[in-house]
Amino acid sequence: MIAVLRLGHRPERDKRITTHVALVARAMGASLMYLVGEDRNVVETIEKVTENWGGDFRIICVNDWKKVIKEWDGITVHLTMYGEDFEEVVERVRGNNVLIIIGASKVPSEVYELVDYNASVGTQPHSEVAALALFLDRFTSGRWKKLDFKGAKIRIIPSPRGKRVVRDEDSRSGI
Amino acid sequence: MIAVLRLGHRPERDKRITTHVALVARAMGASLMYLVGEDRNVVETIEKVTENWGGDFRIICVNDWKKVIKEWDGITVHLTMYGEDFEEVVERVRGNNVLIIIGASKVPSEVYELVDYNASVGTQPHSEVAALALFLDRFTSGRWKKLDFKGAKIRIIPSPRGKRVVRDEDSRSGI
Repeated sequence: MIAVLRLGHRPERDKRITTHVALVARAMGASLMYLVGEDRNVVETIEKVTENWGGDFRIICVNDWKKVIKEWDGITVHLTMYGEDFEEVVERVRGNNVLIIIGASKVPSEVYELVDYNASVGTQPHSEVAALALFLDRFTSGRWKKLDFKGAKIRIIPSPRGKRVVRDEDSRSGI
Repeated sequence: MIAVLRLGHRPERDKRITTHVALVARAMGASLMYLVGEDRNVVETIEKVTENWGGDFRIICVNDWKKVIKEWDGITVHLTMYGEDFEEVVERVRGNNVLIIIGASKVPSEVYELVDYNASVGTQPHSEVAALALFLDRFTSGRWKKLDFKGAKIRIIPSPRGKRVVRDEDSRSGI
């Protein structure tokens, strides 16, 4: 079980980055994302993706992020450019339930103390979207590419040129 | 030599995602990003990052994106969810100069024809930031972690708790 906790989301400013965080979480094997605060825009965008593309990824809006960390049944890893090398952390935690904590705006210093690991995906200014992707890539040993999204109405057939898309005809209600 | 071509950037809407694309490009080994259109906000943000964190990554604003693709001295790869598996493409192009093309809004269909490869980082709705990171991770065989950013005024020392930062005292003019 993989989950993401998105801290410090500011609805207007962060909606697109937080949506990208959720898309990456879903595409690379997480089951859910806890979003601190409320943002219908992000939640609805992701619900539409799951409806069309399958799987059961969902967003849960929460207020008490400390409770989410403290009550997590497994390992907690905070992605930050100041942490330990992420690949070393992955080696220690792989196979466990993992809650991955990702900040948007400044992260409260308590987070660094509350979590099991602070993990750094490189030591340069980066992107939390990329950091999550690289962490999940290593954590799943690259197996995210083979995930099966049950109930998908749309599937893509890889192609060197153009777009090949398979649509579930049953889902085309009214057509 | 690795470069990124960012297509379809809409200044207000895309400024944060495009900034993340540029940060990932810089942190993972690209030398420059061509930005189609003009966005001082993104350019200045990245200039400040390079000034403080070193290296010589830069953004070049262009209008004629077709010219950039046609005149590129090396391989061109368009990242799209509709393409061939990215790891197979990387195996074929590694070691060459590569121009990585990344769309924001809808990509003109000509792009699919003009490039050498259309490469897909998974076949699920994803993030171009994550796609770029995973492509560069494979293309550099993970060596982006060892990049040296010359002239850095700030460096981070990985740490399990808290923040350890080294600042170049010479740069603290006026303190």
